[in-house]
Amino acid sequence: MKNFIQLSDAQDLGQLIQEALKLKKEPLSFFPGSGKTLGMLFFNASLRTRLSTEKAARLLGMEVMSMNVMNDGWALEFSDGVVMNADKAEHVREAAGVLSQYCDILAVRSFPGLKDKEADQKEQVLGAFRKHARIPVINLESATAHPLQALADAMTILELKTRKKPKVVLTWAPHPKALPQSVPNSFAQIMQKMEVDLVITNPPGYDLNPEFVQKTPVLHDQHAALEGADFVYVKNWSSFEQYGQVLTQNPLWMMDQEKWKLTNEAKVMHCLPVRRNVVISEELLDSPHAVVLQQAANRTFAAQAVIKNLLEA
Amino acid sequence: MKNFIQLSDAQDLGQLIQEALKLKKEPLSFFPGSGKTLGMLFFNASLRTRLSTEKAARLLGMEVMSMNVMNDGWALEFSDGVVMNADKAEHVREAAGVLSQYCDILAVRSFPGLKDKEADQKEQVLGAFRKHARIPVINLESATAHPLQALADAMTILELKTRKKPKVVLTWAPHPKALPQSVPNSFAQIMQKMEVDLVITNPPGYDLNPEFVQKTPVLHDQHAALEGADFVYVKNWSSFEQYGQVLTQNPLWMMDQEKWKLTNEAKVMHCLPVRRNVVISEELLDSPHAVVLQQAANRTFAAQAVIKNLLEA
Amino acid sequence: MKNFIQLSDAQDLGQLIQEALKLKKEPLSFFPGSGKTLGMLFFNASLRTRLSTEKAARLLGMEVMSMNVMNDGWALEFSDGVVMNADKAEHVREAAGVLSQYCDILAVRSFPGLKDKEADQKEQVLGAFRKHARIPVINLESATAHPLQALADAMTILELKTRKKPKVVLTWAPHPKALPQSVPNSFAQIMQKMEVDLVITNPPGYDLNPEFVQKTPVLHDQHAALEGADFVYVKNWSSFEQYGQVLTQNPLWMMDQEKWKLTNEAKVMHCLPVRRNVVISEELLDSPHAVVLQQAANRTFAAQAVIKNLLEA
Repeated sequence: MKNFIQLSDAQDLGQLIQEALKLKKEPLSFFPGSGKTLGMLFFNASLRTRLSTEKAARLLGMEVMSMNVMNDGWALEFSDGVVMNADKAEHVREAAGVLSQYCDILAVRSFPGLKDKEADQKEQVLGAFRKHARIPVINLESATAHPLQALADAMTILELKTRKKPKVVLTWAPHPKALPQSVPNSFAQIMQKMEVDLVITNPPGYDLNPEFVQKTPVLHDQHAALEGADFVYVKNWSSFEQYGQVLTQNPLWMMDQEKWKLTNEAKVMHCLPVRRNVVISEELLDSPHAVVLQQAANRTFAAQAVIKNLLEA
Repeated sequence: MKNFIQLSDAQDLGQLIQEALKLKKEPLSFFPGSGKTLGMLFFNASLRTRLSTEKAARLLGMEVMSMNVMNDGWALEFSDGVVMNADKAEHVREAAGVLSQYCDILAVRSFPGLKDKEADQKEQVLGAFRKHARIPVINLESATAHPLQALADAMTILELKTRKKPKVVLTWAPHPKALPQSVPNSFAQIMQKMEVDLVITNPPGYDLNPEFVQKTPVLHDQHAALEGADFVYVKNWSSFEQYGQVLTQNPLWMMDQEKWKLTNEAKVMHCLPVRRNVVISEELLDSPHAVVLQQAANRTFAAQAVIKNLLEA
Repeated sequence: MKNFIQLSDAQDLGQLIQEALKLKKEPLSFFPGSGKTLGMLFFNASLRTRLSTEKAARLLGMEVMSMNVMNDGWALEFSDGVVMNADKAEHVREAAGVLSQYCDILAVRSFPGLKDKEADQKEQVLGAFRKHARIPVINLESATAHPLQALADAMTILELKTRKKPKVVLTWAPHPKALPQSVPNSFAQIMQKMEVDLVITNPPGYDLNPEFVQKTPVLHDQHAALEGADFVYVKNWSSFEQYGQVLTQNPLWMMDQEKWKLTNEAKVMHCLPVRRNVVISEELLDSPHAVVLQQAANRTFAAQAVIKNLLEA
């Protein structure tokens, strides 16, 4: 593995998940990172990703240097050929080149602006770091993908599934703000590679990018979709078709205990942070059916497996 | 010890102070933190607390991960049963649950708002972390208490006292902004457990919460209180009675060299940061009577003793 | 060496540069920092300086604690004798005294305000830390000097020079904002100690402080200056004479491929961050003549040599 920008960067995704599950049992067995440094760049807020990735790197023996780009460093320019006489003080070409000399792996979080579909789809920020860095780059959630979250989610489903081919439902839920499609994109993508029966449900106008949906059935009837589900992954996203728009906040799409009764005693998943009583009802979230903390715990070992692979490449 | 939220969390406060004094002599003797992680969450500014606690944890072999919650993470909701459709993206239940999986001890700084007496008195923020975290929680200064500062202060008095039962005066001093009562609360509390003759002096309207004053004499005449003092702890706080108000900035209450002459060559203490020529005169602060740097130095070993106890519990 | 505030703090500058070059080859050979802590205080943005200095300290075995003073800590007062009843909560006397107890070396970045020439020239911020700290202080770029950058620049020239006494041209370039003179000051200073033929070129009104220019020829004709240059150091600075002013942004002073043809196949240098197509043309910056990344890489080992010297003093 040379980078971990998207799930397809893993030669063998199943093996990577198995390695993460193994590391969870023996997190302090391998130190390929001794004497090496992980650089982490945050263009956006982060709690789980920041701490679990830092922890993963240290478990492997690495040093970690983190920067909140917006507060600590210089405003970065990403376009080529620009006369830089405005507010951007440094070009990503130099920044990535310099960071490549201080670090052994670079991890970057950069959310989409959700205004310019084309710029977001071509992953302007992460793409520039991948292009100009001379060291492996890890995606800590980009404009279109959150592969570390997807790995942790896959681990959680493997840990908890009670039948060979469980039914997994990815359901849209309401939210007051426009959120990226990165988490549902990567979740759909990893589920499509696993032995599960995946169904996506969302209101009309909220269908995900067809490249990520592939042949997965998309239902606009949430109740029908939830029927018999073993896992329900709840998540809001903004419209891909009417790009970045919040078309509805219809509270009838919130996941709650009533709807849970339609499922096969499903485990309820969410990547966090979650807005209680908006996305998922408090009652359901505080019930033993919710496995959101287990997902979060798995983030450490997903990151550890990825970093270990990059170090050993 | 399971948490260190308030001084009463220590089974034996005297022993804890003695252990801190011992660690000061041999800070690199114990490594119970090896392979473990301290998470530090700051809702407010910090210099001494941040650095001394980080240093203490590293002296014990721990890794440290710090977050400025306001800048780095998600706005947190602390109320239960809320429909989270406004500006708060994450509930403390999830945040504390997640942090409990990445860290072995959690340390939290959260000052009072000084607007809502009831909310502050019930320690809404720190209380929520204590309730929802599954790991020990350390108070890095909360709405009503600053027990790590009190430990360091007690160490300083033990190191410097020249008679068996010294007279210790806690005196209010003026300040342009409304400050918490946490430092004087915890200082009064720890002094009440020690073999000292404690007196509190403040203007009318500034009496501390009776729960912290207990039977300590409170004088509204600063000169009378200072008479014969061996230690003078100077500190501003906002009114508890007229909650959070600045009732006076009377400069006659500033501690200075003239008033020092009333004392028994007292050592002058302050938790820092201190506003020069407002709280304490520059002349006195720069004299050998001021022991504020010694107090600050002791913060490291107070934190080290607390963390060591939590790790070994 | 007791501090590294300016280049003259090094007893033997040539030896320090040689040591840095040696460390570049064997960065993990010396651990004099084991059990010791570097404190880093940033009053301004930083990428290279922050990460290379942190990395250098860790290579020597040190722990590192960083603070963005403006966001994380208390607003600092630097004047003596002030009644601190306004917005500054802590005096540098206490801050420096406290930090001296938690850290073994203190590193500080503080840019000039570029409003008050006298205050900037006397290095109010860094000078106060040097005066009140009880541990060695490192300059991470101050109002008038950036000696760590100068060390890395000198290393780069030694690594790349092809004749005994190369011609080195320091040329002003346009920039939309007022920048400090610290980088050109320190670069001129270190070049004056080396076996090079140094020439400075800048528009009228932009002559540097005569204390740093010394006897170096200053040409107001850029083309004449560039003739036959082996190294061209490009950098903007604001006017010293009309202090802190941007007198011109004349694009004719930008360094580009055309002007490069006047040189002796010069290596093109810049401290970064650099504004493309304003300071240096993209074409030249992306050509093999530009050695800006090598300069940035050398920052780590320059810092390592300085820290090693301070630890061993």
